[in-house]
Parts: sequence; C-alpha cells; structure tokens
Amino acid sequence: MDFQFIKPLLKEDAKGKIVMLVMDGLGGLPLTPEGWTELETAQTPNMDALAAKSSLGLHHSVPYGITPGSGQAHLGLFGYDPVKYEIGRGVLSALGVDFDLGPNDVAARGNFCTVDENGVITDRRAGRIPTEVGERLCNLLKEKVQLPGVELFLTPEKEYRFVFVLRAEGLSGDVSDTDPQAVGKKAHIATATSPAGEHTAELIRDFVRQGNEILKNEFPANSFVLRGFAGMPAWPKFPEVWGIKSLAIAMYPMYRGVSKVVGMTVMPPAESMADEITMLEQNWSDYDFFFVHIKKTDSYGEDGNFEGKVHIIEEVDALLPRILALNPDVLIITGDHSTPAKLKSHSWHPIPTMLYAKDARPDGITSFGERACIQGSLGSRFDATELMPMALALAGRLEKYGA
Amino acid sequence: MDFQFIKPLLKEDAKGKIVMLVMDGLGGLPLTPEGWTELETAQTPNMDALAAKSSLGLHHSVPYGITPGSGQAHLGLFGYDPVKYEIGRGVLSALGVDFDLGPNDVAARGNFCTVDENGVITDRRAGRIPTEVGERLCNLLKEKVQLPGVELFLTPEKEYRFVFVLRAEGLSGDVSDTDPQAVGKKAHIATATSPAGEHTAELIRDFVRQGNEILKNEFPANSFVLRGFAGMPAWPKFPEVWGIKSLAIAMYPMYRGVSKVVGMTVMPPAESMADEITMLEQNWSDYDFFFVHIKKTDSYGEDGNFEGKVHIIEEVDALLPRILALNPDVLIITGDHSTPAKLKSHSWHPIPTMLYAKDARPDGITSFGERACIQGSLGSRFDATELMPMALALAGRLEKYGA
Repeated sequence: MDFQFIKPLLKEDAKGKIVMLVMDGLGGLPLTPEGWTELETAQTPNMDALAAKSSLGLHHSVPYGITPGSGQAHLGLFGYDPVKYEIGRGVLSALGVDFDLGPNDVAARGNFCTVDENGVITDRRAGRIPTEVGERLCNLLKEKVQLPGVELFLTPEKEYRFVFVLRAEGLSGDVSDTDPQAVGKKAHIATATSPAGEHTAELIRDFVRQGNEILKNEFPANSFVLRGFAGMPAWPKFPEVWGIKSLAIAMYPMYRGVSKVVGMTVMPPAESMADEITMLEQNWSDYDFFFVHIKKTDSYGEDGNFEGKVHIIEEVDALLPRILALNPDVLIITGDHSTPAKLKSHSWHPIPTMLYAKDARPDGITSFGERACIQGSLGSRFDATELMPMALALAGRLEKYGA
Repeated sequence: MDFQFIKPLLKEDAKGKIVMLVMDGLGGLPLTPEGWTELETAQTPNMDALAAKSSLGLHHSVPYGITPGSGQAHLGLFGYDPVKYEIGRGVLSALGVDFDLGPNDVAARGNFCTVDENGVITDRRAGRIPTEVGERLCNLLKEKVQLPGVELFLTPEKEYRFVFVLRAEGLSGDVSDTDPQAVGKKAHIATATSPAGEHTAELIRDFVRQGNEILKNEFPANSFVLRGFAGMPAWPKFPEVWGIKSLAIAMYPMYRGVSKVVGMTVMPPAESMADEITMLEQNWSDYDFFFVHIKKTDSYGEDGNFEGKVHIIEEVDALLPRILALNPDVLIITGDHSTPAKLKSHSWHPIPTMLYAKDARPDGITSFGERACIQGSLGSRFDATELMPMALALAGRLEKYGA
C-alpha cells in the first residue's frame, strides 16, 4: 500500500477501534505429515467460535520462501514493506536492549573479540567471556574514551555482545562496518559510505583507536568490532499513516522498540499475558489501535517445545473473552512469522490469520488453524501489508476511492 | 525474486538436495466439462501419497492468460522472469539443434524462400523443400561463402528452416532482421540497432549478398531470410544465483540448451525416462540441484493423444520410488506449461505443482491433479519464479532476513 494513496481516504472523525493480537511465531508444522500443527492441536474454543464470524487466510511479510526476523515481520504487519523499509542492525540491537534511541543517535552492534600481536582476529567472540566481563569492559571504555562533543553509550548484551551508540548533532549511519565477520582478518577501518558519514566515520576511528589501547591487556577480550551503523529511520509514522491513535503493549524490548520506530505510543513492559490484557482494558478509551504482543509462542517454538507452544495458544484463547468484552470493531489474530517447534527456528511458512469484525464476511470456516486458513477468503498467501487497510475499512475508517 | 536480495541470504555450507522433475506440458484439460484432465485420469498412487505430505498449487511463468514457449517457461521454473530475461530467437533455434553456442557467437533463425526476378518474396517456405534439399543448400553456402576472420555455421533443421551462426571476437546481436515475415515484400537489409552491431551487420549483409548469388539458380529455394540475431545472454548464472551445484538431465536439445544458458552443468542426451533416472542416481553425490526433464507428456499433448499423455504420467509415477529412494530434501513435481491434448498445443492454463520436503507444511490434500491443487497452500496461480526460493528454504539453504 502506497501511504500517499491512502492518506486522502482516511476519515477524520472515525471512531472504530482495532486490536491486533500477535502471537509471535504462531505458524507451525505437524511433527509428522499425518499430524497437526501447534495451533491445530491447541483447544481453542473461543478462537474457533470467532473464526466462524471472520475472514481467514495466511500472510507473509517478505518474498515467498524467505524467513523474516521478528523486527522485519512486525513492520509487515504494521503495513511497512520490510524490504523497502530497511532497518539497520544497530537500531535493532539498540531496540533489543530497550535503549531509548533518539533522533541524534547512531547505533551499532559490537562484539568483543581476540586479536593477535598483528591485530588479526583469532576469536570473534573473545572466548565467549562471561556477561559480567562484558559489562566491566563496556564501563571501562565508557569511562576512559574521550570523544569531545559526543555522548557515548555502551550497553552490554549477553557475553561478548554490546550495543554501541554515539549521540550528537549531525551524525549519520553512512559508515562501513569494522567487523570483517571472519577470523584470520584484521578489523576493517570504518569509512564513510556517503559524504554525510565523514564526521561520524572519523569519530568511530578515534573510538576504535582509543578503545584498542584501553583493552590491549584484557585478553581474551583485547579488541572489538562494530557493525550495522544506523540511526533511527525517518519513516512516515504509523499513527499518521493510518490516521489512528495507536498503543503498543508488549513484554519484550524488541517489540516495544519496533513499535516506537514506527511512532506508536509504547506502554512500559508488561509482566504477563494477563497483565497485557489489563493494560489493554485500562487504556481502551484513550486509543483506537492496540498492538498486543505475545512472546512465548515463539520462545517455545525456538526451544522445540511443541506442547509448551500449544499450551500458550490455549492460554491466549482463554484470555480472548476479556478482549471481546471490550467490543472491538476489528480484531486481528495472527503471528509475525512461523516458528515451528519441529524446526526450533523461524521459518518462511505463511502465518494463519483471522480478521474478525462486525462487518467481516464470514468464510464458513469454523476453526482456526493452518489448513483451515488455506480455504479462507484472504487467500493462502496474502501480503502482510494488506492487513492494515482491511482493518481500517472494517473499522469504518476509510472513505470511498473515487465517486 | 531480486537475485541481489537473495545473495546475502545463501548459506555457504548448506547440504540440502533438490530435485525439480518437470513433465513438459503437464497441465491439461478434460475432454468434456464433466471429465478429468490427463493428470487427474492417470493412476498415480506414488504421487498421490506424496501429495499428502506436500504443499500444492498451480503456477504460471508469464502474465496470466499468456501461453509461453518451452524455453521461456523453463526460465520461469529456474527463477528467471521470462519477460525480463528475454532470450533471442536465434539462441533458441541454436539450442534446439544442440548447437554448442559459445560466448563469441551470434545466431539467427533462417528460412529458405522463393523470390521473383525483382527480389520480392513469393513463398516464405520455398515450397516446403524436403529436408535433404535444405541440408544440401546449407552445405553449399558454408562451402562457398567467404567471410575472412569469421567462422560460419549453418545447421539444417526441418525442410526450409536452418540455424545461422557467426563466430568471431567482437560480434553483437544488435542487428535487425532481414525477414519481413510477409510475402510480396523484399527482404530487409540487415542494419545495426546499436553501434556495437555495426561490424556484425556488415558481415551479414556480405553473407546475404554472396548467398543470394550462390542460390540464384536453386529455385524454389533461390533466397533466404534471417531473423532473431542474438548472442548467448550474459545473465547471472543459476548455480551462483541460488548458491547450488546444479545438473540438468534431459533427452531433447532445447531443454539441455536452456539449462546451459543459465549455467547448469548439462548431461549428454538421455535415451529414455528410465535412463534419466539412472543419470540422477549416478550423479547424486556430485550435485545438489537436479533438473530432470520429461518430454513425452508434451509430445502426446501436441498430438492430441489424451491416452498417450495419461500413460506417460503413469510411467513417471512408476519411476518415482527410485527418486524417493535417493532421499531428496526437496522434490518439486510440476510442468513448464500446459499442453492439453484437447487443444493439441501449449496453453496458458496454470500448471499443477507439488512441493514435497521433509519440512513442507502438508495441505491435507491426498491426490495430485489440477482441481486438487486449486485447494493447495501455494495458491491456484502462483508465480513460477517463487519455486526456487521456496525450495531453497525447505532445503535449509537460506539464512533469515534481518534479525
């Protein structure tokens, strides 16, 4: 959807409310060809009843066959083609540690590593140093490096990983990686990839020089590499694009982060799924669009825990009456990508989707699952970016195109 | 799929093996509206059993409603949009006679024709001279024409048709046709369509001048016309595009040729379908992608022989256990286009497709046929170029896009 196309169609006085309930990694696979997927296995009486009143289908957010990361997949659900709206690695890393990335920031993903006397990388993970060592080294660098006129943030992640952020006016993410992503090579020298990146590249080279001097006796973490320099993208904002006051409710930093990138209001971290629904209830009158994110379906999928994933889906089903009691005009239930327990990883398989609305056209399907959704009216492989326009239409928020 | 998009996603150390089994002209039509298609009629217990473990759908390789040639349709299956990757008529003709077209060659399709005393074409097929006459005239021209510094090849096809090839450094296909494709007109004068074609155009004009002099007493084949000048296209190569060591197995020149154009390794002509499967078995450990082409489904379709086509499909079904015994990670069974016996020609109708893999998401469909595939998760009209990315994903050969 071209955002400029939809802009003149947005009704100014529209009131319809939309809930987008995303179970991360919802799509699954049967463990044997004769078996059922996680969603098909789960006892979901509430979702099944809702399916009978809904339009169903399966979506994908990136080209068919490609497996998306979570950040990219959520952009698709929000209506932003993730191939067109590229989000930098550094930004995703910063979002993942809940760093409050601002408009003057440039972020990168950092790895502590081991180098030999010639500066050649011998271990890209510095022997997987404990997280406490990573924390100490981040603090050491932050304390000792001098970059006049620039604020420096170093936030440890797990083990050898950290997030690097520079804050100042006039910075740019147009700088090449120092990380060669291979052992047996020296770190690259950070170089501007456009004139706008010259000053930032210089600052990074200065940081690298000072940092290596400070770490030289810290074997095995006696050096570091940086990659994915990027600033907050200046994209059209979700609330303006779709003309809807929008709230994001999520437990994990990445999902609050990507919601923030597109300009939604973001709630503080929820503590449980039930807590998320309570947040939804408490903020019901103040917003018109609610993104509610369920993480554990994906976590159990990644762990290969089929039963665990089934159980989370059943818990979400049990919470559904509380959402329906709010009487939303539109309720989307879907995932961002598939995370089949069978594969213990994200996959490219399309994601079952239910689009409920008072004015939805029911498909005559009475259960919610991968195979049921193939037969749905949304199609077995529609584009995730088509969800928002359909939801807005069903919420009575769009004018007719033409006379 | 943008090849540049997929390049960074290719796993370097991937091992998954893919077989693409193409029954040429597989798609069919029932002879009466109540009847079954060729594929639906065929007894295919092995394919039906595999369908239950597969994702199904129907593909097309060119815009909907358009009937593709075989070369174009195969490009689609290989992931090359045949509208974007135009292949010259001359190249297709050369491939069709198994001419080993090289990088310094320019090929064209030739017709012997009849002209009157003013050079006006009176018969574009020279009274359909016997093939032996065509052969004799090709040899005559090859022997007598003098083009210093240039190698000339003239390969007879059937009757009045031949393939014309010039070989030298610095040639170009940027030359206009001499064939006016109508009677009552003189042959056009070959003209460069870009500065790169100037030298080649001059050589062709010289060839035409000498050739007409040599043929002037050979009524009815007293002249000739040439069209579709083209060299081997400099396209991205299949093994690099998809990061997979690739082997083509086919009985007919055209299919080996189009495989060669995209850079696959090509086996010598097989002698039978069983022989093709033997070649697959013998080369199993040396390649990771295998294109296996079955010609006779199309031949019987073109002949209007419904039962013959049914029988070939059944023979292929009987060979399937030998392919499955190799334990491929992914097996695609499809056609390149439809050739319904009812129509005795290629048609635009979409082509039934089965995508089997250990990690395929089964669609709950237990037979392989046009109507069954409509209900499949790949959709009833997906783009042929999407097959390769899906196959690579299911073979575990693709990294995630994004974090």
